[in-house]
Amino acid sequence: MLLRVRAAVAQLAAGLGAGAGAQPPAEPRGGGAGAGSGASPPAAAFCRPAFLQLTPEELRRADDHTGRAVQSPRDGRRRLPWRTGYAEVINAGKSQHNEDQACCEVVFVERRPSPRGRLMSREGCGELDGGRKGFYFHYWALFDGHAGSGAAVMASEKLHVHICEQLRDLVDILQDPSPPPICLPHGPGDPTRVSVAEDDGEVPNDAVPRFHLEKAVSHESLVIGAIENAFKHMDDQIERERGAQHLAGGCCALAAIYLMGKFYVANAGDSRAIIIRNGEIIPMSREFTPETERQRLQFLALLRPELLGKEFTPLEFPRRIQPKELGKKMLYRDQNMNGWAYKKIEEDDLKFPLIYGEGKKARMMATIGVTRGLGDHDLKVFSSNIHIKPFLSCFPEVRVYDLTQYEHCPDDVLVLGTDGLWDVTNDKEVAGVVMEVLTSYEPNDPCRYTMVAQELVVRSRGVLKERGWRLANDKLGSGDDISVFVIPLGGPGNYT
Amino acid sequence: MLLRVRAAVAQLAAGLGAGAGAQPPAEPRGGGAGAGSGASPPAAAFCRPAFLQLTPEELRRADDHTGRAVQSPRDGRRRLPWRTGYAEVINAGKSQHNEDQACCEVVFVERRPSPRGRLMSREGCGELDGGRKGFYFHYWALFDGHAGSGAAVMASEKLHVHICEQLRDLVDILQDPSPPPICLPHGPGDPTRVSVAEDDGEVPNDAVPRFHLEKAVSHESLVIGAIENAFKHMDDQIERERGAQHLAGGCCALAAIYLMGKFYVANAGDSRAIIIRNGEIIPMSREFTPETERQRLQFLALLRPELLGKEFTPLEFPRRIQPKELGKKMLYRDQNMNGWAYKKIEEDDLKFPLIYGEGKKARMMATIGVTRGLGDHDLKVFSSNIHIKPFLSCFPEVRVYDLTQYEHCPDDVLVLGTDGLWDVTNDKEVAGVVMEVLTSYEPNDPCRYTMVAQELVVRSRGVLKERGWRLANDKLGSGDDISVFVIPLGGPGNYT
Repeated sequence: MLLRVRAAVAQLAAGLGAGAGAQPPAEPRGGGAGAGSGASPPAAAFCRPAFLQLTPEELRRADDHTGRAVQSPRDGRRRLPWRTGYAEVINAGKSQHNEDQACCEVVFVERRPSPRGRLMSREGCGELDGGRKGFYFHYWALFDGHAGSGAAVMASEKLHVHICEQLRDLVDILQDPSPPPICLPHGPGDPTRVSVAEDDGEVPNDAVPRFHLEKAVSHESLVIGAIENAFKHMDDQIERERGAQHLAGGCCALAAIYLMGKFYVANAGDSRAIIIRNGEIIPMSREFTPETERQRLQFLALLRPELLGKEFTPLEFPRRIQPKELGKKMLYRDQNMNGWAYKKIEEDDLKFPLIYGEGKKARMMATIGVTRGLGDHDLKVFSSNIHIKPFLSCFPEVRVYDLTQYEHCPDDVLVLGTDGLWDVTNDKEVAGVVMEVLTSYEPNDPCRYTMVAQELVVRSRGVLKERGWRLANDKLGSGDDISVFVIPLGGPGNYT
Repeated sequence: MLLRVRAAVAQLAAGLGAGAGAQPPAEPRGGGAGAGSGASPPAAAFCRPAFLQLTPEELRRADDHTGRAVQSPRDGRRRLPWRTGYAEVINAGKSQHNEDQACCEVVFVERRPSPRGRLMSREGCGELDGGRKGFYFHYWALFDGHAGSGAAVMASEKLHVHICEQLRDLVDILQDPSPPPICLPHGPGDPTRVSVAEDDGEVPNDAVPRFHLEKAVSHESLVIGAIENAFKHMDDQIERERGAQHLAGGCCALAAIYLMGKFYVANAGDSRAIIIRNGEIIPMSREFTPETERQRLQFLALLRPELLGKEFTPLEFPRRIQPKELGKKMLYRDQNMNGWAYKKIEEDDLKFPLIYGEGKKARMMATIGVTRGLGDHDLKVFSSNIHIKPFLSCFPEVRVYDLTQYEHCPDDVLVLGTDGLWDVTNDKEVAGVVMEVLTSYEPNDPCRYTMVAQELVVRSRGVLKERGWRLANDKLGSGDDISVFVIPLGGPGNYT
């Protein structure tokens, strides 16, 4: 990820250049910190996901840029829910430690107690867990850090807690098959629902026609809203605590939540999720980069030109303009355009373009290659006082996959991967590896999804040769951190 | 279209209400005005597309809301290019005249003369039309007016002229198979191209690395840019001339341009284009409404709250909030959210929502149901000084279909229709009618595409019964103006 947060151009007329990559990485958490616990003191030099249960010796090996040993949960230790496969490998030296983080949890959402002390008993709401009312969700998430690992570590410890918090007010509503109520009677802390009929009855008859344009809101869209707001609260927490916790940098976040028969895949950044079902590829996310979000960024720059600090132009050009080209005509596009047109070059066009570069090299403000994620509150354009954060969004796009609409076989999986995977292995190749590996293991072999994850990581990393890490076709392997979850959709013991 | 530009709610607390529908319709052009000619004086009470060549008697019949006679180009008169089928019908009385307009032209794009008097001769550029250098494009367009027909009439006369103007600078570049140059040597009026090699040679060697991040721009994206800017110039012309020409209202615009083997379908509004190829439906546009553009509109409102005139809130709620509901929790979503969440109702939330209503009833600022199009420069929220135009975009989305990538049969067509068609007949039903009618005519019958267009209009209008216009299934037919082009993709004599 670090590669994507550095200057696009070595030397710029305006003194812009090498980006936040120059910042020292923050101190990350200790190796054994459990998810959901308070952040650990900044002591250990290196940490990996708690579920790997690495010994100090294993931790040292995982941190070795030369060997790049692939890490997976070990046989005989705690298995991940649903027999989920996981594998990861450190980068080839571009940052001191592995800046990816991962989390996998089963979370109980407990109904928030009524402040008035009365728990209404309603049909359809099960009494679970010794009289407590609530439900479980399954959670898998990858965090790809940049310019330090602090934001990624904190997000891996806390994001599911924020999701849980957002869902707590919805415990009754999500378990009731009737449509969610539009309006609840009182403020925070009292989610006791009131039916539409009751609500109607409360309001006196007046001249304004009411409710004839009432929009139906689904349970699904409440879960989406809860996840969206959880990302926002996570980002706010990083902002609040970044000083005290030495949280540097930012991270992409990709989370899959299984809840009541549906997968909710939330993505903010350039990680990716796909479902492979009966050999077919179903994309479950899209990437958010300066290229894919160009029009949103240009629109903001147009409306808030002060955010550009007189150093950038909101227009996009296919390359830098030389001062001596003033008066010539050059291709450009603005926030309204998808095509390109020629314009006469004016003084203002000589500023550095807000969006510049192509593909993996595309950068916003010559600094960052992803436009959604968590953290980055202190990120500035190099050697300037121009903040990057106003252009970044912490909100994910959430896609929904209904598991009950299709009978899944044990070879159907959801794959989550950081960009280290996808940069060198495309969707089709990933699907090929998945099918190839799964057919060589029995459907009830508990290790088969781990084997897939390992194979995906190994094939994307390549092997070390004289000219660096190389793939089977001798192309350059990924020098980035690589992390992969392989989640079976129809495996034995799922949905429990 | 008028129905979509009226108040969403009869009585609003803030005094907002009946929208621009109350404005008197502008005087439209005369019946025989040719496309590309100057706007006619505001004399004739009613006009239809020039290619229909209606007699005064026919014009009167076309204007009859009771009979709602379907209009098509007559046998024996000028046939439309490619044997294109066209049909239209007036609304059932919701506006005085048919506010739809249509245009179909073959346009020659002449290379703009060099201001320095030297015409460079280059390989690949044909000398056409008596020594002039240029190319032709085919053009079909529908304009669905609202709150007056002035904007639709002017756009139907001028949009293709603006597209032609934008393309004139590209005559050499589009006919040269090498990639378009990033930079041209001089200002407007001299499109003489310079190759990248020549350009490189002009610039002295300096310290800044150059062109290593040069983005490739395709010919296709230049055409898209030209069309996008043509829409903008059209909108500017309407703004400039609306006073002198009595141009009232606005219009949706849907245009299909065939150029060098490709269709460019540009849409701004809620008309729709689909291709039906071998029975398969390929969408060639999407609709721009308060619902589909909610996040763009909310984002603008958030950044420019002064545009809301203290009357509207940028948040969306599923229904109006009653003042007495203050302090309760209600579902909402903002510009970042796709899902819904509860929030405590505050004083500001009692304002009218920027976006309100659902489906065909969705309105922006309680006034307008489409968020892209031409015109509407004077449109204000009823009984207020709040302008609507800043929220509207005149830029189309342009989709490209490469005709050379597939061998088309005479039954493959591109269908363009205003919302009067699509409101009652979905894509699948349209495809069914297309296939049904075409199989009953010989492939070389010149009338077959007109027959399809007529059948589509008749089936969407329905027949007049006691309880109004009814479809075959007794559901309500479209009371809106309906206009349809059916363009064969593999018909005899195409691509000439």
